[in-house]
Amino acid sequence: MIKVKGIDHIAIAVKSIDKLASFFQSGLAIEMSGSENIPDRHLKIGFMDFKNTKVELVEPTSEESAISRFLATRGDGIHHICVKVENIEDAIGHLNENGFEMLDKIPRAGASGSRVAFIHPRSFGGVLIELKECNDEE
Amino acid sequence: MIKVKGIDHIAIAVKSIDKLASFFQSGLAIEMSGSENIPDRHLKIGFMDFKNTKVELVEPTSEESAISRFLATRGDGIHHICVKVENIEDAIGHLNENGFEMLDKIPRAGASGSRVAFIHPRSFGGVLIELKECNDEE
Repeated sequence: MIKVKGIDHIAIAVKSIDKLASFFQSGLAIEMSGSENIPDRHLKIGFMDFKNTKVELVEPTSEESAISRFLATRGDGIHHICVKVENIEDAIGHLNENGFEMLDKIPRAGASGSRVAFIHPRSFGGVLIELKECNDEE
Repeated sequence: MIKVKGIDHIAIAVKSIDKLASFFQSGLAIEMSGSENIPDRHLKIGFMDFKNTKVELVEPTSEESAISRFLATRGDGIHHICVKVENIEDAIGHLNENGFEMLDKIPRAGASGSRVAFIHPRSFGGVLIELKECNDEE
Protein backbone atom coordinates (compact mmCIF):
# COMPACT_ATOMS: atom_id res chain seq x y z
CA MET A 1 0.00 0.00 0.00
CA ILE A 2 1.40 3.37 -1.04
CA LYS A 3 -0.06 6.70 0.04
CA VAL A 4 1.19 9.67 -1.98
CA LYS A 5 0.73 13.05 -0.28
CA GLY A 6 1.94 15.40 -3.02
CA ILE A 7 5.09 16.61 -4.75
CA ASP A 8 7.85 17.49 -2.27
CA HIS A 9 10.15 19.13 -4.81
CA ILE A 10 11.43 19.27 -8.37
CA ALA A 11 15.21 18.87 -8.60
CA ILE A 12 17.27 20.70 -11.22
CA ALA A 13 20.84 19.49 -11.84
CA VAL A 14 23.18 22.48 -12.21
CA LYS A 15 26.87 23.13 -12.64
CA SER A 16 26.50 26.23 -10.45
CA ILE A 17 23.76 26.84 -7.88
CA ASP A 18 24.71 30.53 -7.78
CA LYS A 19 24.23 30.95 -11.54
CA LEU A 20 20.79 29.30 -11.70
CA ALA A 21 19.67 30.96 -8.46
CA SER A 22 20.45 34.33 -10.05
CA PHE A 23 18.03 33.54 -12.92
CA PHE A 24 15.26 32.59 -10.47
CA GLN A 25 15.98 35.76 -8.47
CA SER A 26 16.07 38.26 -11.34
CA GLY A 27 13.53 36.53 -13.60
CA LEU A 28 10.93 35.19 -11.17
CA ALA A 29 11.67 37.15 -7.96
CA ILE A 30 12.20 33.86 -6.11
CA GLU A 31 15.03 33.87 -3.54
CA MET A 32 16.91 30.83 -2.29
CA SER A 33 15.65 29.96 1.19
CA GLY A 34 18.69 27.91 2.25
CA SER A 35 21.35 25.45 1.20
CA GLU A 36 22.85 22.22 2.48
CA ASN A 37 25.88 20.03 1.81
CA ILE A 38 25.45 16.26 1.52
CA PRO A 39 29.10 15.14 1.64
CA ASP A 40 28.50 11.39 1.30
CA ARG A 41 26.60 12.01 -1.96
CA HIS A 42 29.08 14.67 -3.16
CA LEU A 43 26.30 17.23 -3.51
CA LYS A 44 25.36 20.74 -2.53
CA ILE A 45 21.65 21.68 -2.61
CA GLY A 46 20.00 25.09 -2.83
CA PHE A 47 16.33 25.30 -1.80
CA MET A 48 13.66 27.56 -3.26
CA ASP A 49 10.16 27.76 -1.80
CA PHE A 50 7.31 28.11 -4.34
CA LYS A 51 4.55 28.07 -1.65
CA ASN A 52 2.78 24.89 -2.80
CA THR A 53 6.00 22.96 -3.48
CA LYS A 54 9.77 23.46 -3.72
CA VAL A 55 12.52 23.56 -6.32
CA GLU A 56 15.96 22.23 -5.40
CA LEU A 57 19.12 23.18 -7.30
CA VAL A 58 21.56 20.26 -7.07
CA GLU A 59 25.25 20.90 -7.74
CA PRO A 60 27.90 18.16 -7.67
CA THR A 61 30.93 18.73 -5.43
CA SER A 62 32.99 15.96 -7.06
CA GLU A 63 33.16 13.88 -10.23
CA GLU A 64 31.92 10.89 -8.23
CA SER A 65 28.40 12.28 -8.03
CA ALA A 66 25.68 10.81 -10.26
CA ILE A 67 24.76 14.43 -11.00
CA SER A 68 28.19 14.94 -12.64
CA ARG A 69 27.40 12.21 -15.17
CA PHE A 70 23.97 13.73 -15.91
CA LEU A 71 25.53 17.18 -16.46
CA ALA A 72 28.27 15.77 -18.70
CA THR A 73 25.75 14.19 -21.07
CA ARG A 74 22.80 16.63 -20.92
CA GLY A 75 23.98 19.87 -19.32
CA ASP A 76 21.90 21.75 -16.74
CA GLY A 77 18.32 20.49 -16.64
CA ILE A 78 15.42 19.10 -14.65
CA HIS A 79 16.70 15.93 -12.98
CA HIS A 80 13.94 14.32 -10.92
CA ILE A 81 10.58 14.70 -9.19
CA CYS A 82 10.30 13.92 -5.48
CA VAL A 83 6.99 12.48 -4.29
CA LYS A 84 5.93 12.66 -0.63
CA VAL A 85 4.75 9.33 0.78
CA GLU A 86 3.25 8.56 4.18
CA ASN A 87 5.39 5.49 5.02
CA ILE A 88 8.47 4.82 2.94
CA GLU A 89 8.85 1.10 3.76
CA ASP A 90 5.21 0.55 2.70
CA ALA A 91 5.85 2.53 -0.50
CA ILE A 92 8.98 0.50 -1.38
CA GLY A 93 7.05 -2.72 -0.65
CA HIS A 94 4.21 -1.64 -2.94
CA LEU A 95 6.62 -0.77 -5.77
CA ASN A 96 8.48 -4.09 -5.40
CA GLU A 97 5.21 -6.04 -5.48
CA ASN A 98 4.22 -4.23 -8.67
CA GLY A 99 7.44 -5.06 -10.52
CA PHE A 100 9.34 -1.79 -10.09
CA GLU A 101 13.09 -1.80 -9.49
CA MET A 102 14.40 0.40 -6.68
CA LEU A 103 17.77 2.16 -6.82
CA ASP A 104 17.49 2.15 -3.00
CA LYS A 105 16.13 -1.12 -1.66
CA ILE A 106 16.09 0.36 1.84
CA PRO A 107 15.56 4.05 2.70
CA ARG A 108 18.61 6.24 3.02
CA ALA A 109 19.26 9.71 4.40
CA GLY A 110 18.19 12.65 2.21
CA ALA A 111 18.43 16.39 2.82
CA SER A 112 17.39 17.84 6.19
CA GLY A 113 17.33 14.45 7.97
CA SER A 114 14.65 13.00 5.69
CA ARG A 115 14.30 9.34 4.63
CA VAL A 116 14.29 8.85 0.87
CA ALA A 117 14.54 6.18 -1.85
CA PHE A 118 14.80 6.44 -5.64
CA ILE A 119 12.91 4.29 -8.15
CA HIS A 120 15.13 3.06 -11.01
CA PRO A 121 14.24 5.16 -14.08
CA ARG A 122 14.45 2.11 -16.36
CA SER A 123 11.40 0.68 -14.59
CA PHE A 124 9.52 4.02 -14.74
CA GLY A 125 9.72 4.86 -18.46
CA GLY A 126 12.99 6.79 -18.19
CA VAL A 127 11.70 9.24 -15.54
CA LEU A 128 13.58 9.51 -12.23
CA ILE A 129 11.26 9.56 -9.19
CA GLU A 130 12.39 10.02 -5.59
CA LEU A 131 10.20 8.99 -2.65
CA LYS A 132 10.43 10.98 0.57
CA GLU A 133 8.76 10.01 3.82
CA CYS A 134 6.66 12.86 5.08
CA ASN A 135 4.45 12.47 8.13
CA ASP A 136 3.64 16.08 8.83
CA GLU A 137 0.38 17.75 7.91
CA GLU A 138 1.87 20.34 5.52
CA MET B 1 6.72 43.40 -11.44
CA ILE B 2 6.21 39.63 -11.35
CA LYS B 3 4.15 37.82 -8.72
CA VAL B 4 4.73 34.05 -8.63
CA LYS B 5 1.97 32.07 -6.91
CA GLY B 6 3.43 28.57 -7.01
CA ILE B 7 4.13 25.69 -9.37
CA ASP B 8 1.15 24.89 -11.61
CA HIS B 9 2.55 21.65 -13.01
CA ILE B 10 5.57 19.65 -14.02
CA ALA B 11 5.43 18.45 -17.64
CA ILE B 12 6.85 15.10 -18.74
CA ALA B 13 7.39 14.54 -22.47
CA VAL B 14 6.29 11.01 -23.40
CA LYS B 15 5.95 8.90 -26.52
CA SER B 16 2.83 7.33 -25.01
CA ILE B 17 0.61 8.87 -22.32
CA ASP B 18 -0.99 5.46 -21.71
CA LYS B 19 2.36 3.79 -21.01
CA LEU B 20 3.60 6.41 -18.52
CA ALA B 21 0.15 6.73 -16.93
CA SER B 22 0.23 2.98 -16.25
CA PHE B 23 3.49 3.40 -14.27
CA PHE B 24 1.98 6.22 -12.18
CA GLN B 25 -1.12 4.09 -11.62
CA SER B 26 0.54 0.82 -10.63
CA GLY B 27 3.62 2.33 -8.94
CA LEU B 28 2.24 5.38 -7.14
CA ALA B 29 -1.53 4.75 -7.12
CA ILE B 30 -2.07 8.03 -8.98
CA GLU B 31 -4.81 7.99 -11.63
CA MET B 32 -5.08 10.32 -14.59
CA SER B 33 -7.77 12.91 -13.89
CA GLY B 34 -8.38 13.90 -17.51
CA SER B 35 -6.87 14.55 -20.92
CA GLU B 36 -7.03 17.20 -23.63
CA ASN B 37 -6.02 17.62 -27.26
CA ILE B 38 -4.29 20.82 -28.34
CA PRO B 39 -4.47 20.42 -32.14
CA ASP B 40 -2.69 23.67 -33.07
CA ARG B 41 0.34 22.57 -31.01
CA HIS B 42 0.11 18.94 -32.18
CA LEU B 43 -0.14 17.70 -28.60
CA LYS B 44 -2.22 15.50 -26.36
CA ILE B 45 -1.99 16.08 -22.59
CA GLY B 46 -2.85 13.74 -19.71
CA PHE B 47 -3.38 15.36 -16.29
CA MET B 48 -2.52 13.91 -12.89
CA ASP B 49 -3.46 15.63 -9.66
CA PHE B 50 -0.87 15.40 -6.85
CA LYS B 51 -2.93 17.53 -4.40
CA ASN B 52 -0.45 20.41 -4.01
CA THR B 53 0.46 20.54 -7.72
CA LYS B 54 -0.04 18.62 -10.97
CA VAL B 55 1.94 16.46 -13.36
CA GLU B 56 1.14 16.64 -17.08
CA LEU B 57 2.09 13.91 -19.56
CA VAL B 58 2.63 15.54 -22.96
CA GLU B 59 2.51 13.33 -26.07
CA PRO B 60 3.09 14.65 -29.59
CA THR B 61 0.42 13.92 -32.19
CA SER B 62 2.67 14.80 -35.15
CA GLU B 63 6.33 15.22 -36.05
CA GLU B 64 5.77 19.00 -36.17
CA SER B 65 5.56 19.23 -32.39
CA ALA B 66 8.53 20.61 -30.44
CA ILE B 67 7.99 17.63 -28.12
CA SER B 68 8.83 15.26 -31.00
CA ARG B 69 12.26 16.84 -31.31
CA PHE B 70 12.85 16.57 -27.54
CA LEU B 71 11.85 12.88 -27.58
CA ALA B 72 14.05 12.13 -30.60
CA THR B 73 17.17 13.45 -28.85
CA ARG B 74 16.52 12.58 -25.20
CA GLY B 75 13.67 10.07 -25.00
CA ASP B 76 10.89 10.31 -22.41
CA GLY B 77 11.75 12.73 -19.62
CA ILE B 78 10.86 15.80 -17.59
CA HIS B 79 10.35 18.63 -20.08
CA HIS B 80 9.44 21.84 -18.22
CA ILE B 81 8.17 23.46 -15.05
CA CYS B 82 5.09 25.70 -15.20
CA VAL B 83 5.01 28.62 -12.76
CA LYS B 84 1.71 30.32 -11.82
CA VAL B 85 1.85 34.11 -12.09
CA GLU B 86 -0.79 36.68 -11.12
CA ASN B 87 -0.69 38.78 -14.33
CA ILE B 88 1.05 37.36 -17.37
CA GLU B 89 1.65 40.66 -19.21
CA ASP B 90 3.31 42.05 -16.08
CA ALA B 91 5.41 38.89 -15.79
CA ILE B 92 6.55 39.06 -19.44
CA GLY B 93 7.36 42.77 -18.98
CA HIS B 94 9.43 42.00 -15.88
CA LEU B 95 11.38 39.25 -17.69
CA ASN B 96 12.04 41.48 -20.72
CA GLU B 97 13.29 44.30 -18.48
CA ASN B 98 15.68 41.89 -16.77
CA GLY B 99 17.23 40.63 -20.01
CA PHE B 100 15.36 37.36 -20.46
CA GLU B 101 14.30 36.21 -23.91
CA MET B 102 10.71 34.99 -24.32
CA LEU B 103 9.72 32.19 -26.70
CA ASP B 104 6.26 33.83 -26.55
CA LYS B 105 6.44 37.61 -26.65
CA ILE B 106 2.69 37.78 -26.10
CA PRO B 107 0.58 35.24 -24.17
CA ARG B 108 -0.94 32.39 -26.11
CA ALA B 109 -3.59 29.79 -25.36
CA GLY B 110 -2.54 26.86 -23.16
CA ALA B 111 -4.55 23.88 -21.90
CA SER B 112 -8.05 24.42 -20.47
CA GLY B 113 -8.39 27.97 -21.80
CA SER B 114 -5.39 29.28 -19.85
CA ARG B 115 -3.01 32.05 -20.97
CA VAL B 116 0.64 30.96 -21.05
CA ALA B 117 4.11 32.02 -22.27
CA PHE B 118 7.43 30.20 -22.30
CA ILE B 119 10.81 31.70 -21.36
CA HIS B 120 13.58 30.76 -23.81
CA PRO B 121 15.73 28.11 -22.07
CA ARG B 122 18.93 29.68 -23.42
CA SER B 123 18.26 32.72 -21.25
CA PHE B 124 17.42 30.58 -18.20
CA GLY B 125 20.48 28.32 -17.93
CA GLY B 126 19.07 25.58 -20.15
CA VAL B 127 15.90 25.08 -18.08
CA LEU B 128 12.50 25.46 -19.79
CA ILE B 129 10.01 27.50 -17.71
CA GLU B 130 6.38 28.13 -18.66
CA LEU B 131 4.38 30.99 -17.15
CA LYS B 132 0.63 30.52 -16.64
CA GLU B 133 -1.74 33.26 -15.59
CA CYS B 134 -3.69 32.17 -12.56
CA ASN B 135 -6.03 34.53 -10.77
CA ASP B 136 -7.94 32.08 -8.63
CA GLU B 137 -7.26 31.45 -4.96
CA GLU B 138 -6.32 27.77 -5.30
